[in-house]
Amino acid sequence: MPRPLITLLTDFGAADHYAAAMKGVMRGICPAAEFIDISHEVAPYALAEAAYTLSQAWQYFPKGTIHLIVVDPGVGGARRPVLAKSAGHYFVAPDNGVLSMVIPTEATSGLACSVRELTNPKYFRPSLSQTFHGRDLFAPVAAHLANRVPAARFGRTIVDWVRLEGLLPCRDANGAWQGIVLKADRFGNLITNLPSDLIENSGKGWNLRIGNRILATLATSYSEGEPGKLFVIVGSSGYLEISANQRSAAVVTGATSGTRITLRPGRGIS
Amino acid sequence: MPRPLITLLTDFGAADHYAAAMKGVMRGICPAAEFIDISHEVAPYALAEAAYTLSQAWQYFPKGTIHLIVVDPGVGGARRPVLAKSAGHYFVAPDNGVLSMVIPTEATSGLACSVRELTNPKYFRPSLSQTFHGRDLFAPVAAHLANRVPAARFGRTIVDWVRLEGLLPCRDANGAWQGIVLKADRFGNLITNLPSDLIENSGKGWNLRIGNRILATLATSYSEGEPGKLFVIVGSSGYLEISANQRSAAVVTGATSGTRITLRPGRGIS
Amino acid sequence: MPRPLITLLTDFGAADHYAAAMKGVMRGICPAAEFIDISHEVAPYALAEAAYTLSQAWQYFPKGTIHLIVVDPGVGGARRPVLAKSAGHYFVAPDNGVLSMVIPTEATSGLACSVRELTNPKYFRPSLSQTFHGRDLFAPVAAHLANRVPAARFGRTIVDWVRLEGLLPCRDANGAWQGIVLKADRFGNLITNLPSDLIENSGKGWNLRIGNRILATLATSYSEGEPGKLFVIVGSSGYLEISANQRSAAVVTGATSGTRITLRPGRGIS
Repeated sequence: MPRPLITLLTDFGAADHYAAAMKGVMRGICPAAEFIDISHEVAPYALAEAAYTLSQAWQYFPKGTIHLIVVDPGVGGARRPVLAKSAGHYFVAPDNGVLSMVIPTEATSGLACSVRELTNPKYFRPSLSQTFHGRDLFAPVAAHLANRVPAARFGRTIVDWVRLEGLLPCRDANGAWQGIVLKADRFGNLITNLPSDLIENSGKGWNLRIGNRILATLATSYSEGEPGKLFVIVGSSGYLEISANQRSAAVVTGATSGTRITLRPGRGIS
Repeated sequence: MPRPLITLLTDFGAADHYAAAMKGVMRGICPAAEFIDISHEVAPYALAEAAYTLSQAWQYFPKGTIHLIVVDPGVGGARRPVLAKSAGHYFVAPDNGVLSMVIPTEATSGLACSVRELTNPKYFRPSLSQTFHGRDLFAPVAAHLANRVPAARFGRTIVDWVRLEGLLPCRDANGAWQGIVLKADRFGNLITNLPSDLIENSGKGWNLRIGNRILATLATSYSEGEPGKLFVIVGSSGYLEISANQRSAAVVTGATSGTRITLRPGRGIS
Repeated sequence: MPRPLITLLTDFGAADHYAAAMKGVMRGICPAAEFIDISHEVAPYALAEAAYTLSQAWQYFPKGTIHLIVVDPGVGGARRPVLAKSAGHYFVAPDNGVLSMVIPTEATSGLACSVRELTNPKYFRPSLSQTFHGRDLFAPVAAHLANRVPAARFGRTIVDWVRLEGLLPCRDANGAWQGIVLKADRFGNLITNLPSDLIENSGKGWNLRIGNRILATLATSYSEGEPGKLFVIVGSSGYLEISANQRSAAVVTGATSGTRITLRPGRGIS
């Protein structure tokens, strides 16, 4: 039987001891646990970035994986800690919207999904600090889960969990899609929240506006076109990305997480 | 039986091959070894920062864990390599003070603790470079230890191991505690070397001076008060921290590792 | 039997989900796979830096280790994906020169070595993105290899794989060695491509020119000499390094990856 697998996603950075303290706590509770870091370099308190990063990683792991997410600006305050189960994966996180792109919305909730508030102190560390629930609450819960403690023992299901606003694109009165840049990655690719099929199924053409630039070229690889020219590409995430061959589209455009974009149907520029 | 666990703490950074070369060497000697990184982002040669980071991580790991620490400005010079055993944990490191917050001082040495100089070349790599004892000496020793080689085989115990000065606070003639900032973490929290019970047991109040600011507010969570206002909080380390809600106290105060602070009893400001 | 070991070397950085998505895919195909990161902080598209970093890490791992390298500026274009076997290790990478310091050149090819083009889509993910072959092609191949799929099933051997130019030093008409800086490491040590035996076997002395500085001092440890003074040292890589005691030789000299250096025999400065 494979050993239990726990992934970690935090905004703790690589220099501090925080992620290691969590892993130590978990190995103490579940010596068989194995860890894979998704990232500890989420920008501090950046919930939308964390939600996106999680959404692009969890789905490639085997069923049964436990995902531990600690991006927690409200630690020690009123926000609830939760355990979500969705599509055969477990998510242990603060209830602050960081799971917004993982837990299906009601409209698409054909998938079996449950969210529980973590209320059973039996599965926390005996002394709970006010500032580091990652170590004292979330990590021990993830480790007990890895020890096959049934989900129901951690607390009751809830339905009013927090969802981040603005992550989904919307269609305006003119038929254009209003979206945002979810993240600029290390290469300066601007990952948008516009699903690629908005372009792929667009028989009559399209144009995409970001700042004062208008793009209408769909590339098929990053290495296409002259270096530095902006283009749109179907990203590995399934979303449209704005990129530039061996340059940073983030630098070229000045755009960043949250920058607004507009996708219009038709070849004309309006 | 669980596989042997080795943690790593270095100032090697994430870009170079140094940490991976150490792990490769260890897997060659002990194929069952598992690794957890505490951090490779200690500032180059920053012994006090490394000592603090280690002190906040090791204690959460299970007994028997081997901690490999390579922050080693004196590599190839006269500094000794050591193996310490304390509280059921093993520490393999250069003898340059990096273990100062881990090995109990004489005053508190009720705990069983031994420190050995690593002198047995049988447990080093055959060819010892002058610049990378992490790979050629410390990693192989850690791996042989993981293979259950008894500690006594690595060398004789010593008692004159190196201690960093200035890590402990001291009380001045006026009854005030003189301390320092040990580290600014990623969030800009200033972790001091003042144990939190100095405030918690202070019936008559207190005030804490950092630079030209005087703080007298003890918060119970990071998310308390208006954004940007400085406060004191009992940190997850058990030390007092100076923080600001969703801001960097390090930026607000200009303080950094080594900045001096003063804690005075009483509500009045003197 | 030890579990299969896969190392990762990429230019993906630590903030994005890319490395984790690759690990998730690999655990799905080969649940027993274990991972050790060499680095994800290769500068974007920096093939020579990646080639050097790989050359300094792979050799310390046990035989049978699978090394997965994704520094891939040509992703989605015409470059071929390859699987190389050399000295009992496996290398899965794009064919863009990143293996130049690992696969022996013809002159030294006494070692058994084979390079295959990855052409069998049976071992790729069903849907191949244009922008992330790390996740969709290289990671699944590495995981199937970890499952002991024979190398020959992935594709046919090739002989015309890509080699980076300029990584080897050459001797000029005056008998001087012309070399380059391969990399400045985190400490500012300048690692050159000049093997240390060029100095060690030089009975009549030598001098090394970098920019307008001439060095003729061979140190035996980093901690030698006054802080800040430049010296040459036999690096842990087997190459000559230019270093400065507790300072950055990269900052002192302004040199970086690719900076030219000249090593002349004899004590006189010509």
